[in-house]
Amino acid sequence: MIHSFLMIGQSNMAGRGYAKEVPPIYDEHIKMQRNGLWQIISEPINFDRPSAGVGLAASFAASWRLDNEQDEIGLIPCADGGTSLDDWAVGGALFENAISQAKLAQRTSKIMGILWHQGESDCSPEKAEQYSKKFSIIIETLRKELNIQEVPLMIGGLGDFLANGIFGQYFASYPLINQALQDFAQTNENAYFVTAKGLSANADGIHFNALSQRLLGVRYYQAFRNLASLPDPLVDEDKILATIYNRPYTKNEKIKLLEHEFAVGNIEAKDYLAELGMMSGE
Amino acid sequence: MIHSFLMIGQSNMAGRGYAKEVPPIYDEHIKMQRNGLWQIISEPINFDRPSAGVGLAASFAASWRLDNEQDEIGLIPCADGGTSLDDWAVGGALFENAISQAKLAQRTSKIMGILWHQGESDCSPEKAEQYSKKFSIIIETLRKELNIQEVPLMIGGLGDFLANGIFGQYFASYPLINQALQDFAQTNENAYFVTAKGLSANADGIHFNALSQRLLGVRYYQAFRNLASLPDPLVDEDKILATIYNRPYTKNEKIKLLEHEFAVGNIEAKDYLAELGMMSGE
Repeated sequence: MIHSFLMIGQSNMAGRGYAKEVPPIYDEHIKMQRNGLWQIISEPINFDRPSAGVGLAASFAASWRLDNEQDEIGLIPCADGGTSLDDWAVGGALFENAISQAKLAQRTSKIMGILWHQGESDCSPEKAEQYSKKFSIIIETLRKELNIQEVPLMIGGLGDFLANGIFGQYFASYPLINQALQDFAQTNENAYFVTAKGLSANADGIHFNALSQRLLGVRYYQAFRNLASLPDPLVDEDKILATIYNRPYTKNEKIKLLEHEFAVGNIEAKDYLAELGMMSGE
Repeated sequence: MIHSFLMIGQSNMAGRGYAKEVPPIYDEHIKMQRNGLWQIISEPINFDRPSAGVGLAASFAASWRLDNEQDEIGLIPCADGGTSLDDWAVGGALFENAISQAKLAQRTSKIMGILWHQGESDCSPEKAEQYSKKFSIIIETLRKELNIQEVPLMIGGLGDFLANGIFGQYFASYPLINQALQDFAQTNENAYFVTAKGLSANADGIHFNALSQRLLGVRYYQAFRNLASLPDPLVDEDKILATIYNRPYTKNEKIKLLEHEFAVGNIEAKDYLAELGMMSGE
C-alpha cells in the first residue's frame, strides 16, 4: 500500500524552482498522481501553470524514502498558484478538486499526511487576523470528508525575502501570516509549523528557488518524522540532500530514463534500441 | 459561459508532439482546466507524462475560435498514455477522474463535445471485436452521469504508420481497430469518425508528430462543426493552420507571455519591468 501525501496551497507548494539549478530526484518508489493513477515522480509534480517547476514535495518524498527503503510514497498534487484562503473555501473548485483527487488516491494508498504552503495571497493585517479561523474550517472539513482526522498537517512558513523583492510592497504583512501559521500549529492537534528561515527566492522575490525548495522539503519531512514543529533550520540539511542525490539508479530507473529521452526526441531510435539492449542484458 | 470539451483516451489524445516543431498556439480565449479552475492555454495541455507535448486539442480549439470570435472555449484534459479500453471501464480511476474533472468544469462551463482518441492499446483481433461493446458502455455511462446525452463525440482514427514502426509488431491489427471506430460512429447517434490518413509519427512510430496533431485537431473541429464523419483529409487544412498561426496577440496576451518569460527565468527583473512598463503604456 502506497503511503500518500496531499499537496495543497498556492505556488510555493506547487513549486516554481528552476530544475536546471539542482540535481534531479528520480526514484521508482516515489509516485505522483496523474488522472487518478500513480506514475513515477518527475518534476514538475504539481503542474498548475506552465512555470511550474521544483517544489518541496520531491525532497520531502526522498527524505521519507531514506527511512522507508522498502516502501512506496505517493504525492497527490492539488496546489494552485496565486490562490487565497478564500479560493480554498469549502465547496469551491480547489477544495472539491483536492477532495476528488484524494479520494481517487485512497483507492490504492493510505493518506499519511497533508502538506500545506499558502499565505502570500493573504498578506494583509485583516486577512492575517482571519487566517486561523478560515484555515480551521478548510482543514477540519477536509479531514472529515477524507476520514483522515489524525494525520499530520505540515505548514510551511513564508520566505523572509518577501518584503524586500520587486513586488515587496504587496507582502509587507508577511510576518503576520507567519505568526498566524505558527499559532495555528500550536493550538491545533496534529499540525506542525516548518520554518522557511534562511531560504532564498527566484528573481521575482516571491518563489523559493530550487535549492530552497529542496531544503524546505527536507524540513517538512523532519516535522512529519518527529511530529513536532521545526522552528529552526536543520544543521545537517545539506548532508541529507547530498545523501538523496547520491542514491544510485536501479536498472529499471535507468531504462525508464532512457525511454524518456527517446520519447522526447533526444536520442535516435537506433541508439535507443542499442542502449536498451545493453541495459536489459546487464 | 465557456464552451468546454472533454479530452479522453490515451497518449495520442494527451499529445506527444514536439513543441519545437510547430508554431505555438496561444489565445486568452482558449482555456484549459487546472485544479478545477480555468487557465489560459499552454502546451502540454494534458500533462499525463513528462513526455507530454503537442496534442490535437490546441488546434481544435483554435479552429473553433475562428468561428467563435467573441466566445471562450475550455479544454478538460483527462487522457492518459498507454491505457486500454479496460483501463477506461466505468468505475475505474480514469473514468472517475474524468467524471470528477468534467463535473468541476460544468460549474462554470457547458460541455459541448467529447474528444476521444484511443485504440493503440487494444490492437488485437479479440480486442477489436469487443471494442464497440466496451466503448458503448463507457460513453453511455459518461453521457448519463454528466447529463450530456446529445453532445457530439469525435473519434479519431489510428495512424497508418503504426504497423511499420520500430514497435510495429504490436500494432499489426490496427486496421481492425480503425474499422471498429468507424463502425461505432456509423451506428451510434452523435458520434463522428475523424480520419488520420496522411499523418506522420515521431521516431517511435506510435505518436503523431506535432504537425500531424495540429492537422488532426483541425479535422476534429470540422467533424464537430459539420456533425459529420470526416473520411478524408481536408483540402485546406494547411491554410486553416496558417490562419491560426497568423492571429496577432492581444496586448494582454503579450503581457502574459512576458510574465511567463520572467517567471521561468528567461529574462531579468529590470528588463521585465521595463518591457512591462512599455507594454502597459501602449
